[in-house]
Amino acid sequence: MTQHTDKLFEEDLSHLKTTILKMGSMVEEMIGISIKALVDRDSTLPDQVLEKDRAVNQLEMDIDAQCLKILALRQPAGSDLRFITIGVRIATDLERLGDLAVNIVRHVRDLNQLPPFPPKIDILPLALNAQTMVKDSLDAFVMQDTEKANEVCLKDDVVDDLNWKLQEELTEFMIQNAKDVPQAIHLVHIAQNLERLADHATNIAEIVIFLVKGEDIRHQHKKK
Amino acid sequence: MTQHTDKLFEEDLSHLKTTILKMGSMVEEMIGISIKALVDRDSTLPDQVLEKDRAVNQLEMDIDAQCLKILALRQPAGSDLRFITIGVRIATDLERLGDLAVNIVRHVRDLNQLPPFPPKIDILPLALNAQTMVKDSLDAFVMQDTEKANEVCLKDDVVDDLNWKLQEELTEFMIQNAKDVPQAIHLVHIAQNLERLADHATNIAEIVIFLVKGEDIRHQHKKK
Repeated sequence: MTQHTDKLFEEDLSHLKTTILKMGSMVEEMIGISIKALVDRDSTLPDQVLEKDRAVNQLEMDIDAQCLKILALRQPAGSDLRFITIGVRIATDLERLGDLAVNIVRHVRDLNQLPPFPPKIDILPLALNAQTMVKDSLDAFVMQDTEKANEVCLKDDVVDDLNWKLQEELTEFMIQNAKDVPQAIHLVHIAQNLERLADHATNIAEIVIFLVKGEDIRHQHKKK
Repeated sequence: MTQHTDKLFEEDLSHLKTTILKMGSMVEEMIGISIKALVDRDSTLPDQVLEKDRAVNQLEMDIDAQCLKILALRQPAGSDLRFITIGVRIATDLERLGDLAVNIVRHVRDLNQLPPFPPKIDILPLALNAQTMVKDSLDAFVMQDTEKANEVCLKDDVVDDLNWKLQEELTEFMIQNAKDVPQAIHLVHIAQNLERLADHATNIAEIVIFLVKGEDIRHQHKKK
């Protein structure tokens, strides 16, 4: 590579990183808003999430196009090449995270039309754990911190267990409270979506480990 | 490229295609078995799906490694480059399809421990439509058939509607039949997983269109 193409390559890479970070922070916001909408029963918030989702979808396509362009024009090698193939994978996970936030606010919107749910069922620990996992996975990506990434992977089981227990409670609750089934079913779906947030956070954490160590640890720590 | 590296490149590409097709047909089998387990209440089948899932997970990692190797050694251009970046994306969708089949048979296994579900709720149309979409998306990939791929994309709304109606029926059913809530909840989850099969089939169809036409149609036809 000449010095000139070298500089262009650096610019392309830096632009790609910025776009991924922008997408990540937008997705984090979407998740934060969707959990706030759930906790505060706030039906004004879902629209914000839907709007951001359109931007996130566009960013996914931008990232794919940038990666393809860099591969075609700059023929990167080594860790740069790894970073670019990872760009495509991380964008997919971020886009799905955005979709999950959209699923959650859609259920919240419907839930808010119904009488308030009795506070026996507490979805908040699941929500906060899933949200933290997403945040930590993105921090691990920014800092290239494999220790933090490992913690995220290990925490996936905690979230699975929280969801499992919540689903059991919800089933029992519905057997006892037929009239509250519609609300409970929304919580069933919201909880499933929260659990999937954690799955995608885990994917991102695995990607970080692959990026830093070149080690593909997918499917090793899943006990599910 | 010399004639020698040209030949090696062709071999790498052909090996990549074969691996993707192998993964695709394995995932199709997993989905077929999971639906058969549901319809026949057959609890001997889930183990087969779990076993194939391990192979599918391994194939995903193999495909990623192959793509990275081809990019590093052969520096492909044009449609070959597009095919390789697509390899990574398609492997992700196939792996998720396998996970969804696993989710389904896990619920089927639990469902089969419970008394048979009254046949008022018919999940079969949803299951068969989702299964057909997966099959058609993979056929479209093999034949590089954008017309078939387009049909798959359009069919996603049909599956969404089937799932929506089924979820409404299940909610109503649970309100009326408290004792059958545990079975109904398994169907709620199975239906959600079937709908997600259709989502991933749609992703694959979109990838086929991008592969053949170079056109990124993601997020254009979703009405959800």
